[in-house]
Amino acid sequence: MSTPARTLHLNAFLMSTGHHEASWRLPESNPLASTDVRHYQNLARIAERGKFDSVFFADSPVIFGNVGRRPAGKLEPTVLLTALAAATEKIGLIATASTTYNDPYNLARRFASVDVVSGGRAGWNVVTTAGPDAARNFGIDDQPSHATRYERAAEFLDVAGKLWDSWDDNAVLADKESGIWADADRVRPINHDGKHFKVRGPLNVPRSPQGYPVIVQAGSSEDGKDLAARYAEAVFTAQQTLEDAQSFYSDLKARTAATGRDPHGLKILPGIVPVIASTEAEARRREQELDDLINPEYARIELAKTLRVSPDDLALDRQLPQDLPHEDSIEGAKSRYTLIVDLARREKLTVRQLIGRLGGGRGHRTFSGTPEQVADAIQLWFEKGAADGFNIMPAVLPSGLETFVDHVVPVLRARGLFRTEYTGSTLRDHYGLQRPLNRYSGALAGVGA
Amino acid sequence: MSTPARTLHLNAFLMSTGHHEASWRLPESNPLASTDVRHYQNLARIAERGKFDSVFFADSPVIFGNVGRRPAGKLEPTVLLTALAAATEKIGLIATASTTYNDPYNLARRFASVDVVSGGRAGWNVVTTAGPDAARNFGIDDQPSHATRYERAAEFLDVAGKLWDSWDDNAVLADKESGIWADADRVRPINHDGKHFKVRGPLNVPRSPQGYPVIVQAGSSEDGKDLAARYAEAVFTAQQTLEDAQSFYSDLKARTAATGRDPHGLKILPGIVPVIASTEAEARRREQELDDLINPEYARIELAKTLRVSPDDLALDRQLPQDLPHEDSIEGAKSRYTLIVDLARREKLTVRQLIGRLGGGRGHRTFSGTPEQVADAIQLWFEKGAADGFNIMPAVLPSGLETFVDHVVPVLRARGLFRTEYTGSTLRDHYGLQRPLNRYSGALAGVGA
Repeated sequence: MSTPARTLHLNAFLMSTGHHEASWRLPESNPLASTDVRHYQNLARIAERGKFDSVFFADSPVIFGNVGRRPAGKLEPTVLLTALAAATEKIGLIATASTTYNDPYNLARRFASVDVVSGGRAGWNVVTTAGPDAARNFGIDDQPSHATRYERAAEFLDVAGKLWDSWDDNAVLADKESGIWADADRVRPINHDGKHFKVRGPLNVPRSPQGYPVIVQAGSSEDGKDLAARYAEAVFTAQQTLEDAQSFYSDLKARTAATGRDPHGLKILPGIVPVIASTEAEARRREQELDDLINPEYARIELAKTLRVSPDDLALDRQLPQDLPHEDSIEGAKSRYTLIVDLARREKLTVRQLIGRLGGGRGHRTFSGTPEQVADAIQLWFEKGAADGFNIMPAVLPSGLETFVDHVVPVLRARGLFRTEYTGSTLRDHYGLQRPLNRYSGALAGVGA
Repeated sequence: MSTPARTLHLNAFLMSTGHHEASWRLPESNPLASTDVRHYQNLARIAERGKFDSVFFADSPVIFGNVGRRPAGKLEPTVLLTALAAATEKIGLIATASTTYNDPYNLARRFASVDVVSGGRAGWNVVTTAGPDAARNFGIDDQPSHATRYERAAEFLDVAGKLWDSWDDNAVLADKESGIWADADRVRPINHDGKHFKVRGPLNVPRSPQGYPVIVQAGSSEDGKDLAARYAEAVFTAQQTLEDAQSFYSDLKARTAATGRDPHGLKILPGIVPVIASTEAEARRREQELDDLINPEYARIELAKTLRVSPDDLALDRQLPQDLPHEDSIEGAKSRYTLIVDLARREKLTVRQLIGRLGGGRGHRTFSGTPEQVADAIQLWFEKGAADGFNIMPAVLPSGLETFVDHVVPVLRARGLFRTEYTGSTLRDHYGLQRPLNRYSGALAGVGA
């Protein structure tokens, strides 16, 4: 296994008018952006101009929170990625999809199709989808347990991998003369028969340009880290401090190596919500201006739901109550729960302050400063063993992404940390990931690697 | 209810290199076209140049038949439609999706998303997916019974309709000043609790430009016709003779009226496989040339499967055996079974001849002739109460579609039967269908109609 030259990776995590929940209220924002495909095409083109590795969309098959509070409703991500593939040429396209509320055959096929249509630029952020509200859209009164969801996710990925390998890369002969289109021996049933799934196969899409879409994972619970160590090729994570990020990084790389994988085959990208201005003071003013637009009543109700307490237990100008549930009793979004409670306790935040921090980036690290300060922060974590790259989460879109591309990316390039041109054409190329061998025939055929 | 001016509707039913199973073997064909998005974008642009109402893709979550025989593997249709939306401006985009192997929440969302991305051009061909092979990709050893599949399909459409109506058209206020994004009272849970589905809602996509995608149905069994009468807005059907087509047409329109619907709200489009040339003799030569490229051994095995007999029971140069199963015992693709057996018996076809007819259009009406003869055939059925339009199934693509657009469409226009320009921008506009009222608030809000 060779050690690739170390390059910073940048993913643009896109969300309607921005990650700050009040961003839609700014004069500059299009409040209908969340379902406006031209908005997202514009964002993807900006990120591609900045030579980002990829753009990414979070997702859940449910409406989050209160539609009164902030833009709700989202285009289904594989549909959205396909629309972006048509508007861009090189940038990777990562969509979130749930292993709990999909069937492997359909979802494996959709991602293979997006990979074909985009010429090898698809990535799949694998989520198990926490929360009873999503479950109730699928005939289930309460969500499956955390452990069951992760067990199903692992088997789901096994099935998807088998389906993506069910056609050899060289299965199609297209021999017009003899009338043989494909070699039937190189297109095989997978005959998977497991605890959660029984799937015969083969898939009805030939093996896609990347073999598989790039597998991304974003849960940081113990189960989440174990799933990532086994399957993920990129991990998005929320880390507030350098020490926490270093600890997460070394832990996950070690877990990955322990499964027998090359840890370079898994890229770790902490999230950062940069608020950028020409002076630090101006950046902080901008951040405050956004926080002031948050409606604290809506936010308090949502926070109470996340913390499994009554809104009445949360006084806006006091700290969190001491008697919160223990993490072990939380069945959904475990790592997010812990992160929020730790953040509030560590920084002794009032509920109002916590709401500001969460409203700005939902528990991700917010950073206000000049382009050089943002580049410093990125470089520090990158060089101190805390990150292979960053998940850039602009507070306001498109302006926050434009500012990052036009002012931070040039600084990173001047420091030799980031590419000036794409050197490949697939998402795997950008992330420095190998094309996977076909599990059935790869070693024989010598493809991949 | 007003009676709209009667206009012919044309749908282009697109399938890799064409509907003739041997079309991929022609020198002009790209044998890798089945997963080449540029091929389909080119086809959609040709159909749009001809001002077709729509393009359409059949689908099933399984590989049909033998990959040795003809191109297999297809891009997932909602992904494909989205790619076509980017390449076209007006033409309607219809994808097939299964109610047996999807969840209503996910699928309703995908079609709403395609409708948004395409600016109101989405249609959904609702199928129940016959056959045990598909079932085995979803953990089921044998397909659900015909009756169960159709019962589930009806409830699936009820749930989807409720989800599409879960947002009022005017739910989004986007009031930046007050900080209220949507009126929470106009985004409602649907709380569906039925035999097959329990779905809380609301959908996480606002009501789409067309309200719903246009609902298309293509099964012609008794259950299929009843489903169409209740829900469908367009029906694709295989009819071999004018008399059969007239009988189907009047039966289905009567069933539609019997449900309380305006029968004009359901358009009936029989399939036609036109083989067009400047003389009738040349067209027939072309057809024979294609039939000669069929590999009869593969075809015999597939026909035997459809007829539930052993391949050994089918002698290539004899007629079908007399002792075939009765239609009532067929649990999948009932109407297709009957059509094939009737065709063979009526025209006293040998197995070899039957294979040629089926290979040319899978049981749809093949018609070889000059552009005027094809236009005559279309006009006759259109004027004799057998069709509201046609599902054009070119034997070879793109050439068959180009020939139809360049040579048959002008004849239809000269006769005043077909549009010269699009008069609207949505698929509903093209088919002359009303935008559906919102079942929860439509009458109050006065939208639609």
